[in-house]
Amino acid sequence: MIPLALTMGEPAGIGLEVTGGAWTALRMDGPAFFLIGDADAVHGVPVRRIAVPEEATGSFAEALPVLHRPLPTPAVPGRIDAAHAPAVIASIEEAVALARLGRASGVVTNPIQKSSLYAAGFRHPGHTEFLGEIAGTGLPPVMMLASPMLRVVPVTVHEPLAAAIARLTPALIAEHARITHAALIRDFGIARPRLAVAGLNPHAGEAGTLGREDIEIVAPAVAMLLAEGIDARGPMPPDTLFTAKARPGYDVAICLYHDQALIPIKALDMDGGVNVTLGLSIVRTSPDHGTALDIAGRGIADPSSLIAAIRLAAEIARNRMP
Amino acid sequence: MIPLALTMGEPAGIGLEVTGGAWTALRMDGPAFFLIGDADAVHGVPVRRIAVPEEATGSFAEALPVLHRPLPTPAVPGRIDAAHAPAVIASIEEAVALARLGRASGVVTNPIQKSSLYAAGFRHPGHTEFLGEIAGTGLPPVMMLASPMLRVVPVTVHEPLAAAIARLTPALIAEHARITHAALIRDFGIARPRLAVAGLNPHAGEAGTLGREDIEIVAPAVAMLLAEGIDARGPMPPDTLFTAKARPGYDVAICLYHDQALIPIKALDMDGGVNVTLGLSIVRTSPDHGTALDIAGRGIADPSSLIAAIRLAAEIARNRMP
Repeated sequence: MIPLALTMGEPAGIGLEVTGGAWTALRMDGPAFFLIGDADAVHGVPVRRIAVPEEATGSFAEALPVLHRPLPTPAVPGRIDAAHAPAVIASIEEAVALARLGRASGVVTNPIQKSSLYAAGFRHPGHTEFLGEIAGTGLPPVMMLASPMLRVVPVTVHEPLAAAIARLTPALIAEHARITHAALIRDFGIARPRLAVAGLNPHAGEAGTLGREDIEIVAPAVAMLLAEGIDARGPMPPDTLFTAKARPGYDVAICLYHDQALIPIKALDMDGGVNVTLGLSIVRTSPDHGTALDIAGRGIADPSSLIAAIRLAAEIARNRMP
Repeated sequence: MIPLALTMGEPAGIGLEVTGGAWTALRMDGPAFFLIGDADAVHGVPVRRIAVPEEATGSFAEALPVLHRPLPTPAVPGRIDAAHAPAVIASIEEAVALARLGRASGVVTNPIQKSSLYAAGFRHPGHTEFLGEIAGTGLPPVMMLASPMLRVVPVTVHEPLAAAIARLTPALIAEHARITHAALIRDFGIARPRLAVAGLNPHAGEAGTLGREDIEIVAPAVAMLLAEGIDARGPMPPDTLFTAKARPGYDVAICLYHDQALIPIKALDMDGGVNVTLGLSIVRTSPDHGTALDIAGRGIADPSSLIAAIRLAAEIARNRMP
C-alpha cells in the first residue's frame, strides 16, 4: 500500500501533536503515512527521517516517518511565527505533488492559520480553494464533511450569509450535487447515492409563503438532477432534515450555506467529523477542527478527528484503485 | 395544584392521540391536565366530561378530563375539515382565558394545521404570534426550544431567511435576549443565566472578512447586554456553538434565524424538545412537532414531546408561584 502524505499545518498549533497521537494509534495496523515537515518540531513519539516516501511503509510501526523540511526558526506552541508561513505552504504543495505522481496515495492536511499565511501572500479563502488551484480538475472543489452519522456538502462556504444566498442558482446547486454524486460512487463505494437537498427558508418556504427561493432555485435544481437520473429529493425543510429519524433516509445532505451543513454535523459529532475535498485530481481529507493555538503543546489535543481523516483517506484511495 | 389546559389542536392530526398517550403516562403522578376539545374524538383511553377545570384534578388518575366542546362534524384522522377551524381556534382562546383567570396553571397547545386555519380567517404566522396577541404583555412573544441538552431562542422566526437577515438590529437581538434572561430566572429558576449569542456569518464573520453583520449588529447587542449586567457572550461562531463541548458553557443560545436554532436542537433531540413561549402573561408550552397527518390514527405517534411539554409547563408554573 502506498503511504498517505500528511502536511505540517501551522506548527504552533496542535497539528504535529495530533500527528504523533495518530501515529501511536495507527502504527501497528495502519494505514501508513508520512509527515512533510520539521522533524525537530515533533515531540513525544519516535521519529525517522526518510529521504523518499517509499521508505515510509516498511518501518512505520517503529517510528513516525518524516520528510524533513526544516523551519527557519523553532516552532513554539501557541505562538505564530510569520517566518514559518512559506514552509507551511510548501508542505501542502509537496504533498499534492507526491500524490499527483502516485508516490502518496492521498493527502491529509493538518490545520493552517489563515491569518498567518495571508501575511505571507497566501491569497485563498482556505485550504480547499488552494487545493482546487493546485490539484483541480476544472470542476470547483467541493467540501464534504463526513462522519459515521451524517455526510453534508455546503454549496456555498466561506462568504457572508447574505452574499451566499444571493449567489445561489439552480446550476450551482446541481453542479455541487453532481460532483458529490460521482464521488459517493467512486470514493465511497455507494452504488446508487441518495441525495437530500436542503431548503433555504424556514420549513423550505412553506409553499412560497416564507420565501420564493425554495420554489425558484432549489426545486429546479432537484428537477435537473432527477432528469439526469440522480436520486435527489428536496427542497427538504432544514430543521427536520438532520433528525435521527431522517438521517438514515439519505447518503448525503446537500446544504445551501456553511452553517446549515456544519451546525448539525458538529452538534452530532465534533471529534469524528472529517473534511473531504471532492472534485480534485487527488485524494484529500483533513480533520474537522482548527489549529487550537490555545491548547497547543499541553498534550491534551484529541487526535480522533485526524485519525478518522487518515482512515477515510486510505479508504477512498482503496476504493479508487482499479 | 391547579391543572394545565391542553388545547385540541388540529383534530385530524396526532394531537388527540398523543394527548391520550400523555394521560396514560402521567395519570398516576401527574401533572394533572384537562383537554379542551371534542370528547368523542378521543379514542383508546377513558374520558370524563368535566363542567369546570376544577373537576380535573380529583379524578385525573381514572380518566382523561375533557371540557367537551363538540366539533360540527366528526374528526377523521388525516383528513382536514375546514368546518373544524373555528373550534380549533376557540380551544386556544378558552385555554388562554382560563389561564389568565388562574383556573388553569398554564396552556399546552397541540399542533395546528395553519393552512386550514388560514382558510377560516386566521391571520397569524403561527401559534406563538396568535398567543402574543391574546395573552401578550406588550413585549414580543419569544419562542424558546428547550430540551435536556440545549435551549435555543430564535430572534427571527417565520420569514424568508434573506428578510430575517435584513431585519436584524442590535435592539432586536438585545430585546429577545432580555426577555429570555428574565424568563430563565423566573420560569427556569436559573439565578444567573449565561447567554451565548450566535454570530450570523461563517465563523462569526472572521473579524469582518466574511461579512460585517457580526461586528456591526451582533457585537453591539452583546455590548448592550453586558452593560445591563447580563452574562452574555458573542458573536459565537455558529458551527462550534452546539458541540458537546460547548453546550455546557451556556444556559441558552440566542440564535439569529429559525434554522440556526432549530437545526441543532432537532438534530440532537427530536422527541424531547419543547417549545416554550416567553414574554406572555401566561405559561405556554407545546410539543416540538407538527400535526403529522400522514401517521394520524395509526396508533404509532410518539407522545414523548407532549409529555415533556406538559412536565415543563408544570415546572414553570411551580417556579412562578410566589
